[in-house]
Amino acid sequence: MSKFMSERFSKLIAYVPGEQPRDFSYIKLNTNESPYPPAPAVFEALNAGEIANLRLYSDPECGELKRTLADYLGVGSENTFVGNGSDEILSFAFMAFCDKNIPVSYPDISYGFYSVYADLYGIEKNEIPLREDFSIAPEDYFDLGTTIFIANPNAPTGLCLSAGEIEDIVKANPDNVVVIDEAYVDFGGESCVQLTKKYDNLLVIQTYSKSRSFAGGRLGFAVGCKPLIGDLEKLRYSTNPFNVDRLALAAGVAAINNQSYYDNNIFKIIHNREYTTSELRELGFEVLDSKANFLFASTAKLSGAELYAGLRERGILVRYFNRPRIDRFVRITIGTREQMDALISAVKEMLNNA
Amino acid sequence: MSKFMSERFSKLIAYVPGEQPRDFSYIKLNTNESPYPPAPAVFEALNAGEIANLRLYSDPECGELKRTLADYLGVGSENTFVGNGSDEILSFAFMAFCDKNIPVSYPDISYGFYSVYADLYGIEKNEIPLREDFSIAPEDYFDLGTTIFIANPNAPTGLCLSAGEIEDIVKANPDNVVVIDEAYVDFGGESCVQLTKKYDNLLVIQTYSKSRSFAGGRLGFAVGCKPLIGDLEKLRYSTNPFNVDRLALAAGVAAINNQSYYDNNIFKIIHNREYTTSELRELGFEVLDSKANFLFASTAKLSGAELYAGLRERGILVRYFNRPRIDRFVRITIGTREQMDALISAVKEMLNNA
Repeated sequence: MSKFMSERFSKLIAYVPGEQPRDFSYIKLNTNESPYPPAPAVFEALNAGEIANLRLYSDPECGELKRTLADYLGVGSENTFVGNGSDEILSFAFMAFCDKNIPVSYPDISYGFYSVYADLYGIEKNEIPLREDFSIAPEDYFDLGTTIFIANPNAPTGLCLSAGEIEDIVKANPDNVVVIDEAYVDFGGESCVQLTKKYDNLLVIQTYSKSRSFAGGRLGFAVGCKPLIGDLEKLRYSTNPFNVDRLALAAGVAAINNQSYYDNNIFKIIHNREYTTSELRELGFEVLDSKANFLFASTAKLSGAELYAGLRERGILVRYFNRPRIDRFVRITIGTREQMDALISAVKEMLNNA
Repeated sequence: MSKFMSERFSKLIAYVPGEQPRDFSYIKLNTNESPYPPAPAVFEALNAGEIANLRLYSDPECGELKRTLADYLGVGSENTFVGNGSDEILSFAFMAFCDKNIPVSYPDISYGFYSVYADLYGIEKNEIPLREDFSIAPEDYFDLGTTIFIANPNAPTGLCLSAGEIEDIVKANPDNVVVIDEAYVDFGGESCVQLTKKYDNLLVIQTYSKSRSFAGGRLGFAVGCKPLIGDLEKLRYSTNPFNVDRLALAAGVAAINNQSYYDNNIFKIIHNREYTTSELRELGFEVLDSKANFLFASTAKLSGAELYAGLRERGILVRYFNRPRIDRFVRITIGTREQMDALISAVKEMLNNA
């Protein structure tokens, strides 16, 4: 830290993203990216005409993308918000709906960025332990008097609450905003988007990064009642009104119009997930019941750190979190069948040597 | 504002960007975009292979782009910072280097976003009046005991301080950060990038939006000593580490490697600026001596509002600021020779009817 930086950040510890190796020699199962490219319509949309128009600012209202998303989701344009990845939207939501008088609650094991945002904005944190089986107990989130963030499916566990369980939480906190982070919902979770029509305190955030193969393009969106969206827009227009670039806007529209392509990819990923779950369980692994595009898995024979290091030596990157309760586990992104077979072979080899 | 939003934003008034009409029927001289497309190398860089790789996250370290910029500017990679447009970098700089104990100073007539950032982060504002001739008096910025933001060239005036005058300000505020916003420097200003090697309290911010025809691609960068850059990186990694998308990173490298293309465009824009200045002055206009890609101009015969409205009726968009001292003026982006001739014809017609 320089001597010039505001003292309020002196203890801030930034988020550490998963490794992004610059060479392509690894089988990359560590940051929950899709193994498939974007849809053909995205390739068509990012054409020379669009590149020529990069000289012009993007539409700060994101009008066409908002209308496309609204039609797709069955909500109004005024109920949608578009961001430079869902991380940016999460950041705005922490800024808008928490402060020194409004703490934040979230599961103690969840997306690691929640605690970073809370520290960044000086927000008191209420980290609620998961059950012993790593599931979220909905009743732990009733009548909290704080803003609530829940990833559903949760990361890195992959476990899901039903929309009914989320609704119970939303109903039990009428004076606070409940943010449901549905980054992984397309892989088998139950979305709460439709509940936003019924509750003025529910914000649902989704992303193009995972199921729509667009992690590197940066596009996320949120759905909520008009006043909640208005709050986020106020912060966006006070920070960076051109936060979403022209190519992301064009690709975002094209992707929704080519949804069947992504549905087919999701089908394959779910199939590979079930296959890998069953293979790892046969090898004696504990594998949580994932509804996401990743597995959270552990074995009694190797620690999480050993699994991570051994797989890395064998050319496969997975994610390991050196934290109490979950340091036996690794998080494995679901890739193609060939990638999953390579993972299983590597694991077998490690178990034989263990 | 919803009943859930933090009270601290109750009086926040967001920035209002210039009009971005969705149809292309206007001659658009209102938001200082380039009339020329990005360089051929940018078209080549944004190819099908890059689009396929959008499934993968971008490099959070922005390594290749930082190295390219560092080589081009003659500084170290560790002295560069990359953002989702220079607005995002300005936002980080306000957040990092100002707080409730560190106020901010900037010219009373300058980029309208400075006051928005100050209000967003609850920072006390010291708005320093420009001289009667709209120039900045460097001595007004000596020994302020606040963080300082200066756009150089200034907007919307287009007037410039020399690097020597900026250095005097930087030297006179050794305990505070001086941020020089060089969004328009490529059109004839004197950059302070090299001074960052000498002063630990100087941060220089530039953008690809204007001279590099990339307003819609969203890419800005900053140069400063390693600790200042480290402060910005800490905030970036605590907000949105993948803030710059893969296509912007690739285009950013390609653009620097094709700089001669942009130099040629800059030459044409400066030529058109001098031509338009002289034509408008012949029509009796007051036109400030611009070193930017826009002119700030007024006439005794029509108010700024009348100029704006009359040009709009004639299919030409310019920017009008309804603010004391500058409400006689309009800001006119420099376009192609044909666009400037259309502007001059429209102005002549309006003067004849006035």
